[in-house]
Amino acid sequence: MSDIVFRAATADDIPAIVAMLADDHLGAQRESPHDLTPYLSAWRQMQASTDTQQIVGVTEGKVVATMQLTVIPGLSHQGASRLLIEAVRVDGSRRGGGIGTRLIEWAIAYGRGHGCSMVELTTNKSRADAHRFYERLGFEQSHFGYKMRLD
Amino acid sequence: MSDIVFRAATADDIPAIVAMLADDHLGAQRESPHDLTPYLSAWRQMQASTDTQQIVGVTEGKVVATMQLTVIPGLSHQGASRLLIEAVRVDGSRRGGGIGTRLIEWAIAYGRGHGCSMVELTTNKSRADAHRFYERLGFEQSHFGYKMRLD
Repeated sequence: MSDIVFRAATADDIPAIVAMLADDHLGAQRESPHDLTPYLSAWRQMQASTDTQQIVGVTEGKVVATMQLTVIPGLSHQGASRLLIEAVRVDGSRRGGGIGTRLIEWAIAYGRGHGCSMVELTTNKSRADAHRFYERLGFEQSHFGYKMRLD
Repeated sequence: MSDIVFRAATADDIPAIVAMLADDHLGAQRESPHDLTPYLSAWRQMQASTDTQQIVGVTEGKVVATMQLTVIPGLSHQGASRLLIEAVRVDGSRRGGGIGTRLIEWAIAYGRGHGCSMVELTTNKSRADAHRFYERLGFEQSHFGYKMRLD
């Protein structure tokens, strides 16, 4: 695999990030890659947050992977901070090459570096490949994830 | 049920919050209510966060419920913010009186007030009562929750 560098995303990366979010059987139904307006508004909110950061993986000058990392301090578990991983995507043409594994390993190191004692994420029950992927990386499927839309 | 008021927690509420976190079959194994040092340190981190807030429910001058609410802005779902609910507890002597329902309803209103289009939470697979509780409130068990300890 070519060298891949992970770094905080910049506003210039938003089109590539949104394209990856949309290139997915669930994402295709809910993203709008041809109208970036709502993403630019969300980006400004993310920049104002002390806790959340969008990460991209770049190889050969191209953004090929992304995820959102949020460090959440909290009282439970004796005041443990947690790292929440969300919106993990690898460019469709690059899957199967180990980029996803390196992305999550980078997230785990980021969590350690930010004093987190737990890394957590949820995946849709329909994403069987993702379940195997995270279990292989050492995650335990200990919880159920509940969602409620407010639309 | 007596009137209950929900508000942001203050440092004075920490002992009552930690006592509730510990009064639970999972919490009893992992909390240290007789040594608040790690909780006070986590509290300072929470105060520095733009996104997270500890909430308490108070009735007759007594803290009887708590939860942590975190507003997470993000790019996915067309730039949707989500409200993450964590560490939900009701005082053991007050359960079954509707306080939990009012607590979660308050969280949902908080999410709407903060522009969130989704409310989400995870519960341990072993908490069967919690699963029924959240489903009754309209949450959908759509995801699996994965955790990895970094200790």
